[in-house]
Amino acid sequence: MKRVKIAEILSQPEIGKEILVKGWVRAFRSNRFIQINDGSTINTLQAVVDFEKFDEAILKKITTAAAVGLKGILIESQGTGQAVELQVSEIEIIGEANPDDVQRTVMQPKKHSLEFLREQAHLRFRTNTFGAVFRIRHAVAFSIHNYFNQRGFFYLHTPIITGSDAEGAGEMFRVTNLDPKNPPLNEDGTVNFKEDFFGKAVNLTVSGQLEAELAALALGQVYTFGPTFRAENSNTSRHLAEFWMIEPEVAFNDLLDNMNLTEDFLKYICNYVMENCADDLKFLNDREVQEQSQKPQNERNELSLIERLQFVVNNEFKRLTYTEAIEVLKNSNHYKKKKFQYDISWGIDLQSEHERYLVENE
Amino acid sequence: MKRVKIAEILSQPEIGKEILVKGWVRAFRSNRFIQINDGSTINTLQAVVDFEKFDEAILKKITTAAAVGLKGILIESQGTGQAVELQVSEIEIIGEANPDDVQRTVMQPKKHSLEFLREQAHLRFRTNTFGAVFRIRHAVAFSIHNYFNQRGFFYLHTPIITGSDAEGAGEMFRVTNLDPKNPPLNEDGTVNFKEDFFGKAVNLTVSGQLEAELAALALGQVYTFGPTFRAENSNTSRHLAEFWMIEPEVAFNDLLDNMNLTEDFLKYICNYVMENCADDLKFLNDREVQEQSQKPQNERNELSLIERLQFVVNNEFKRLTYTEAIEVLKNSNHYKKKKFQYDISWGIDLQSEHERYLVENE
Repeated sequence: MKRVKIAEILSQPEIGKEILVKGWVRAFRSNRFIQINDGSTINTLQAVVDFEKFDEAILKKITTAAAVGLKGILIESQGTGQAVELQVSEIEIIGEANPDDVQRTVMQPKKHSLEFLREQAHLRFRTNTFGAVFRIRHAVAFSIHNYFNQRGFFYLHTPIITGSDAEGAGEMFRVTNLDPKNPPLNEDGTVNFKEDFFGKAVNLTVSGQLEAELAALALGQVYTFGPTFRAENSNTSRHLAEFWMIEPEVAFNDLLDNMNLTEDFLKYICNYVMENCADDLKFLNDREVQEQSQKPQNERNELSLIERLQFVVNNEFKRLTYTEAIEVLKNSNHYKKKKFQYDISWGIDLQSEHERYLVENE
Repeated sequence: MKRVKIAEILSQPEIGKEILVKGWVRAFRSNRFIQINDGSTINTLQAVVDFEKFDEAILKKITTAAAVGLKGILIESQGTGQAVELQVSEIEIIGEANPDDVQRTVMQPKKHSLEFLREQAHLRFRTNTFGAVFRIRHAVAFSIHNYFNQRGFFYLHTPIITGSDAEGAGEMFRVTNLDPKNPPLNEDGTVNFKEDFFGKAVNLTVSGQLEAELAALALGQVYTFGPTFRAENSNTSRHLAEFWMIEPEVAFNDLLDNMNLTEDFLKYICNYVMENCADDLKFLNDREVQEQSQKPQNERNELSLIERLQFVVNNEFKRLTYTEAIEVLKNSNHYKKKKFQYDISWGIDLQSEHERYLVENE
């Protein structure tokens, strides 16, 4: 019998049908109610066991985090809190979970801090928070490909290992196969990279822009979506050592075309996620609202997560010239109170604090 | 006026409409017929210029590889070889191309060897061959994402820089920020990788399988599609230093499920490409047929490129056990004539020569 995914069962329940579900136990109450999740959705299916019909040795193995297969008839739920439930006729224990071990992990069914989740990277996919994050990340990634494909862009896999420093965007990681302690040397005492794998010194890419521009000048419209790297040891939210970056390049576009593309692109992604990840977004939204409620009033976000996405979708992006941006910044109270770290005058490169002020206040 | 892409014009021509096309000149014949391509398709649009209406200085700049904008009315073609053509009313020279320079490049409109194309990596996107290859590669990549998304798989970006050797799959590239000549040393004289960027020795990933398996045990169905690396200095068609790999991982799947997934997946991709890249496939098919025709009869491929794709789609994949595979190999004339490099007995790991024999002959 082919297993059915819980996302399908809950979105299109067929009452009276015999089905097979496989997943992981989230909770087992009163020797009777199993909450089972299979990762296809944040929601669990309630499965009801008549404990008199099953061997106690089997029931004892139905513990949090255990992998089980449950066969039974889908019925309208007798209790509240769920529309349907599974009346279990067969139980298969696929993988046991030691309750003492589970106690020490993020699989214990309660709220954990993000720091604790970070320490158990191998288990955190099992939590509601990371499940939601990774399902949403998938939807974002797919919507990006879908957006560009629908508009005739071609996806380009630009080189990861490169001999060029695309845009001087930052410190680079070196990629090498030379002996780390005794590298071959030239006569002048410098390292002889001709002996390295590619016959020269190479790095991890900081951008696929160079190759994307070449491709755009032939294919018309291309985009990259792949990993890029920065070796700066800075703990800012803007720069990670490794992250996936999207770079569209379009031949014959002018600045207005590029601004239109950016705005349309971002709105499309936000819309796609709101339409396709409602349950996961609601969970993260509620988690944030609850966290915010513990903060002093003046430190709370004005808008919730979902409200912020709606704000992006429902408003035209404000557009202003560089000169106007400098004007706005110089006339701001923030500037007058000397709250910017970097000074402002026409001609400077805007710093992230400046960009952030413009986005948040204009 | 917004430019229209040639792919759209040719697939849904609106006779009598004024349109703007931007692209690159492939040829300019008789001071009258411009073949223009914009990368959206392998096909060119014929644009007809009444040379008496334009300044000769402008016409002189319409040379192979020049970037131009052409405005005009789309009409039914007077000549043969194309259904529609553009009656040009305005010409904009966007970027000139020096004919002497173009002579030395792959942009010269004739057939070039793949080796010559390789030497001009920055220009090869402009050729029919690489245009076709990259448009098809896009279609393959998109169909992969589409296939998995439709079936409820979640796309996972697994780490590129890693401290683990996922499957002992091969030699790894080291990623480092240490001084290449004078790395910091421990007291025992070994390199002190605690001083390196991540506080330990790290490499480029050979596989995202480890993380994908963890994710599958929580999200149910996941796939990776990202760059992986091998530092072996072997010039085989199976191992590149850098390549994009797809790894699906599914919880609760058995071997039969995995075989079904593989077959369905490959057929879906082949079908998608045949449906969406007919013109590009035909070009590559014809190129191959022409090359094959120059070979002795007994060295030619049995099937053409398109026939091979159709063969994959229209046949059930043969499935056999390991034991059966060993039997087939041992009973083959290839084996009896000692043509395999590696000997065959039950228990060995199959080598690529063995896998290849099975695929090509069974």
